[in-house]
Amino acid sequence: MSILENNTGLYTDHYELTMAQGYFLSGKQNTRANFDYFFRRNPYQSGFVLFAGLADLLETIENYRFEEEDCQYLQSAGFHKKFTQYLKSFKFNGTIHAVREGEIVFPNEPVVRVEGNIIETQLIETLLLNILNFQSLIATKAARIRLVARDKLLIDFGMRRAQGLGAIHASRAAIIGGFNGTSNVYSAFQFGFDSSGTMAHSWIQTFDNELDAFREFARFNPDNAILLVDTYDTLKMGIPNAIKVAKELEKSGRKLLGIRLDSGDLAYLSKEARKMLDKSDLDYVKIVASNQLDEHIIRSLMEQEAPIDAFGVGTALVIGKDEGALDGVYKLSHVNNKPTMKLSENISKMTLPGIKNIYRYYHQDDSLFYADGIELQNKEAPQIIYHPQQPEKNVSVKDLMHEAIINKVMENGKPLYLSSIEDVSEYARTRISQLDSEYKRFENPHLYKVGIGRELMNLRDNLKSDII
Amino acid sequence: MSILENNTGLYTDHYELTMAQGYFLSGKQNTRANFDYFFRRNPYQSGFVLFAGLADLLETIENYRFEEEDCQYLQSAGFHKKFTQYLKSFKFNGTIHAVREGEIVFPNEPVVRVEGNIIETQLIETLLLNILNFQSLIATKAARIRLVARDKLLIDFGMRRAQGLGAIHASRAAIIGGFNGTSNVYSAFQFGFDSSGTMAHSWIQTFDNELDAFREFARFNPDNAILLVDTYDTLKMGIPNAIKVAKELEKSGRKLLGIRLDSGDLAYLSKEARKMLDKSDLDYVKIVASNQLDEHIIRSLMEQEAPIDAFGVGTALVIGKDEGALDGVYKLSHVNNKPTMKLSENISKMTLPGIKNIYRYYHQDDSLFYADGIELQNKEAPQIIYHPQQPEKNVSVKDLMHEAIINKVMENGKPLYLSSIEDVSEYARTRISQLDSEYKRFENPHLYKVGIGRELMNLRDNLKSDII
Repeated sequence: MSILENNTGLYTDHYELTMAQGYFLSGKQNTRANFDYFFRRNPYQSGFVLFAGLADLLETIENYRFEEEDCQYLQSAGFHKKFTQYLKSFKFNGTIHAVREGEIVFPNEPVVRVEGNIIETQLIETLLLNILNFQSLIATKAARIRLVARDKLLIDFGMRRAQGLGAIHASRAAIIGGFNGTSNVYSAFQFGFDSSGTMAHSWIQTFDNELDAFREFARFNPDNAILLVDTYDTLKMGIPNAIKVAKELEKSGRKLLGIRLDSGDLAYLSKEARKMLDKSDLDYVKIVASNQLDEHIIRSLMEQEAPIDAFGVGTALVIGKDEGALDGVYKLSHVNNKPTMKLSENISKMTLPGIKNIYRYYHQDDSLFYADGIELQNKEAPQIIYHPQQPEKNVSVKDLMHEAIINKVMENGKPLYLSSIEDVSEYARTRISQLDSEYKRFENPHLYKVGIGRELMNLRDNLKSDII
Repeated sequence: MSILENNTGLYTDHYELTMAQGYFLSGKQNTRANFDYFFRRNPYQSGFVLFAGLADLLETIENYRFEEEDCQYLQSAGFHKKFTQYLKSFKFNGTIHAVREGEIVFPNEPVVRVEGNIIETQLIETLLLNILNFQSLIATKAARIRLVARDKLLIDFGMRRAQGLGAIHASRAAIIGGFNGTSNVYSAFQFGFDSSGTMAHSWIQTFDNELDAFREFARFNPDNAILLVDTYDTLKMGIPNAIKVAKELEKSGRKLLGIRLDSGDLAYLSKEARKMLDKSDLDYVKIVASNQLDEHIIRSLMEQEAPIDAFGVGTALVIGKDEGALDGVYKLSHVNNKPTMKLSENISKMTLPGIKNIYRYYHQDDSLFYADGIELQNKEAPQIIYHPQQPEKNVSVKDLMHEAIINKVMENGKPLYLSSIEDVSEYARTRISQLDSEYKRFENPHLYKVGIGRELMNLRDNLKSDII
């Protein structure tokens, strides 16, 4: 989003502007408000979500402006001149608290809270949701792929099938979730990680024969050639030709980096390829596999002990296959100096009122996470946490260690710090390792406990009876 | 994509640059090539795809450049200085033929062909796929929603759940597929269509009570207020309050535009709402419905004759729910002045060699489409078209009218014309109307015939036996 240099103010839903104008015209521009960002359901039947997009969000908000051109456009679209005049000097001056980017988070936790006047807090709703929903979705998908791929190299190949410009942050989120690199040069440049790639079938077709194509490629890439071996016949032609070229490289003291399998039965072909390479004393030549991979296929390949060194994962990663959106929402929880909440016919859709903190409880011995508790921000960390809808279900957490996982990340519209992508990835890795494996399994993962504290529960119940 | 003002050259997969460098260093930069863009399978079990993204593609290619900064970056990433020097003055000078944006197209048709030198035709692969795959996917989804929604108003509400910046072109593709408007102000501004919106629950919560919130909103939007009626209780509170406000507006000669239902059973609630409004002589007040709508839910609401005037469709539209990617590919079909093709162990993945045209056959009386035929570009339109894999299946088309649906859209790197979004949408509407309903039904749509001409078949079969 910070990619957009101009017209950033327009990157919003129309109704945010309609409401902002209403607040402005009715003299409510100094009304203070607090909004919470949370999601209601983990995607992919995952046991957790990996929170991502924060650095992008803060940068985007910091630079969120209405230029002359934007204001003229809005006026032509029917907005009042007085309001568009106001927008000209608009900037977000609020305060944001959030969990760290790369944090493991769970449904219904207010992982970001935005405080400021009602206009600024309302105007950024759409961009906040757009950024956090998508990047968290893809980081979570990447983390799942990393879980099954263990220590194999993972490369994002998804740009060509990504959802348009969504490619840009998909690749960033992939790195946060544990990918080692990407084919996406634009994102590598923007965010400071590595891009890499091999060759396409068209390279081979451009030459008279496969061997010439391999030789020429190796000539210009003597230290990092990965030869695509499936254009004609993988076992009978592609791998034998790759072996020839590897041997020729050896004569000049160079080493073929690898071969890539892009079709057929990857388990079988990788085993055959490994044997053929090893028989030619090319045990250093790596095997890269691609072709419609996702966490399930990689898991199966790992179970079959396919000797694959690196996986190129495309479409399934960058579009978050099987679930293309995280259902994150942005709800008002405090306004006019009073906590507020939205009722719903569906009790699980009721929101939590007030300004809240999240505490994470963990075991001192192994640092493994036990549960999270949500409590009003000006109260102590709870010693007992209650199931939000069934308070008879509650658990004592007083013997556990805890930490507040919400921190101030923006003050008066200025980001307090922006973590580097390396730090975020590293943090994600650590936090995922602190989550017990039963929360990370694919089939019916154990439900991580998220409870609310007594003070928050009382506030909510009192407010509820006030409204009803 | 034309949204990106800088670093456009980097919007590519790493391997395109590796290959381009290889071609450059091996002195192949004047080698001529032709690439075809086609997809292999309709998404959503649809009977057709609505082709979209062409204007964006042509603009992006026209402005595709490597700036000083990009070249330095690539050099630091290991590319040869001689090559990055070359990139500094690189621009795409090739020729592109394509079907019109808004055309109805089918699997395996080479709907775009790119001719030029091997470097320029290779370098644009990733951006071409990224743009066309996504926009065609969403335009197709939008067209499906339009099919079931008939003449109801359709508004895109998806920005908040879109895949990051993918939101920008998702909204454009929605308009092409038949949507009337969007909530996405940025896209409306960029592409010249209308944005609109209603209010959020937070607006209501900011006031002491719902009636005050409605009144204040109507005060600032007297001619286009759509009141969200489900914050507390739709039937007992929201609609009665909306009726009050409508009656108050009438006193000053204004009319309430509508109410919005955003939860609950939309069929039931819309019927009750309609009755309540009509009973108060407010038959002019429209009913807008939203909340996780897609083509299946809208179809069901239409079958139930829910009196809904406008549907706000979000997530399912902008992420292409159930299938988040179109599987379009970009394959070399002519190089070194010779046709070429890629074999595959899977016969249906074999590509079509040579430079080809697509002919559409239609009935003179009703203009309904009958079949498409693919033939070498320098040959006559075929009179018999053959099933690509089973030539014994063939059909005579000589008594039908036909037109070539591929046109030159870029010459020497310059777009020949860029259709306006209105023209593209209008064209799409016309073409969809020329497709018989059995191709448009959701369940097992009739398979539209796409055959190849005899000359193309002979060329392919000869080439195949040469390779094997």
